[in-house]
Amino acid sequence: MSQLNVQPQSETQFSQTDRTTVTRLPKRAKYDQETVYAILDEGLVCHIGFVVEGFPSVIPTAYGRIDDMLYIHGSPASRMLRTLQGGVDICVTVTLIDGLVLARSAFHHSMNYRSVVIYGRASAVSDPQQKSEALRAFTEQVVPGRWAEVRLPSRAELAGTLVLALPLVEASAKVRTGPPVDDEADLGLSVWAGVIPLQTVAAPPLDDPLLGSGITAPEYVRRYSRP
Amino acid sequence: MSQLNVQPQSETQFSQTDRTTVTRLPKRAKYDQETVYAILDEGLVCHIGFVVEGFPSVIPTAYGRIDDMLYIHGSPASRMLRTLQGGVDICVTVTLIDGLVLARSAFHHSMNYRSVVIYGRASAVSDPQQKSEALRAFTEQVVPGRWAEVRLPSRAELAGTLVLALPLVEASAKVRTGPPVDDEADLGLSVWAGVIPLQTVAAPPLDDPLLGSGITAPEYVRRYSRP
Repeated sequence: MSQLNVQPQSETQFSQTDRTTVTRLPKRAKYDQETVYAILDEGLVCHIGFVVEGFPSVIPTAYGRIDDMLYIHGSPASRMLRTLQGGVDICVTVTLIDGLVLARSAFHHSMNYRSVVIYGRASAVSDPQQKSEALRAFTEQVVPGRWAEVRLPSRAELAGTLVLALPLVEASAKVRTGPPVDDEADLGLSVWAGVIPLQTVAAPPLDDPLLGSGITAPEYVRRYSRP
Repeated sequence: MSQLNVQPQSETQFSQTDRTTVTRLPKRAKYDQETVYAILDEGLVCHIGFVVEGFPSVIPTAYGRIDDMLYIHGSPASRMLRTLQGGVDICVTVTLIDGLVLARSAFHHSMNYRSVVIYGRASAVSDPQQKSEALRAFTEQVVPGRWAEVRLPSRAELAGTLVLALPLVEASAKVRTGPPVDDEADLGLSVWAGVIPLQTVAAPPLDDPLLGSGITAPEYVRRYSRP
């Protein structure tokens, strides 16, 4: 964040719309590309909201980002993806939980978090080259370095994967950081207050039971950590 | 899960509806209460989907469960909560990521996860006793043991908190576990395959800068871990 303060002139801002303007606790809102992209690049799954016959649905799924485009994918048999490729309105949300904020009063308990909400319409990617690059982005989003090592998608696999692209145009972030904010009258209470920081951490990798002898986990797996 | 196999007669199943029936990879679907509740009890945030003027929105928020009721809360000024208390249809999704599944082919990469999707209509809780119990559930969902120690909500704070209740009636879970599933033709490739298990882990707690001298973090904070 300090970088943003040093070089404010380099910030690209998303245009605010009614939907992306944060009305609740607006001081937590961020509309700059750098913040939005950093959150998207750290996440592992997004939650996609869409409307079917008037009812909302929210489905978790993997994703990848290339520049100003978010890609999601799945089987053409997926009910969600079949719905989405019709060009319907969707909302994609990515949330990172950074810590639990313990105040002296129950009322002021909170979480430190970073979230991004994107509105727009996704469209199916048909160009094989763009599709292949999107699949690379899915893999590299989750395990950087993996794409170079695996058996790449065959023509049949490419054809059997539905890839949707959502332009990153209508997006905003919301960020809470720092200690609890208690009422002044509660500061003298003899109750511990502070933050429990949370991290997503990898345990040692588990070999596939079918792994051939002599094959060991590569460096990017053994030292895996989220950015 | 082994318990489920030992005592299948004790399982309470959610009735399947069109919306909760998993059509994509149905073998990953679970409709028993025990699985659904265990996922809900382990999560920290849910993603709520709702429709405003035809457009879907997905917002992350904290929640708590008491028996067959899910509670969410916030300020009466919140756009989302004002919308929801009108009794509109919502979809609430909780997702836990347990591991990254690295296959020999890009195509078969996956994640191990447990997710719950709930459909229904939330209603505002007006009874002060039920409201207070819901607030207790929010706190205990995140930090078990905390409620007994903090300054409890005042009458004004209770009045200033909008609590919504969503009955756990139309719900289902989806669970993937285990190693990658590669095409047989790829098993001989000299590529490492397996699972990178992921966990949410607490770092040492950070004292509030305003903490009074002599107050130390309690046991449930120092030894914090997710269930």
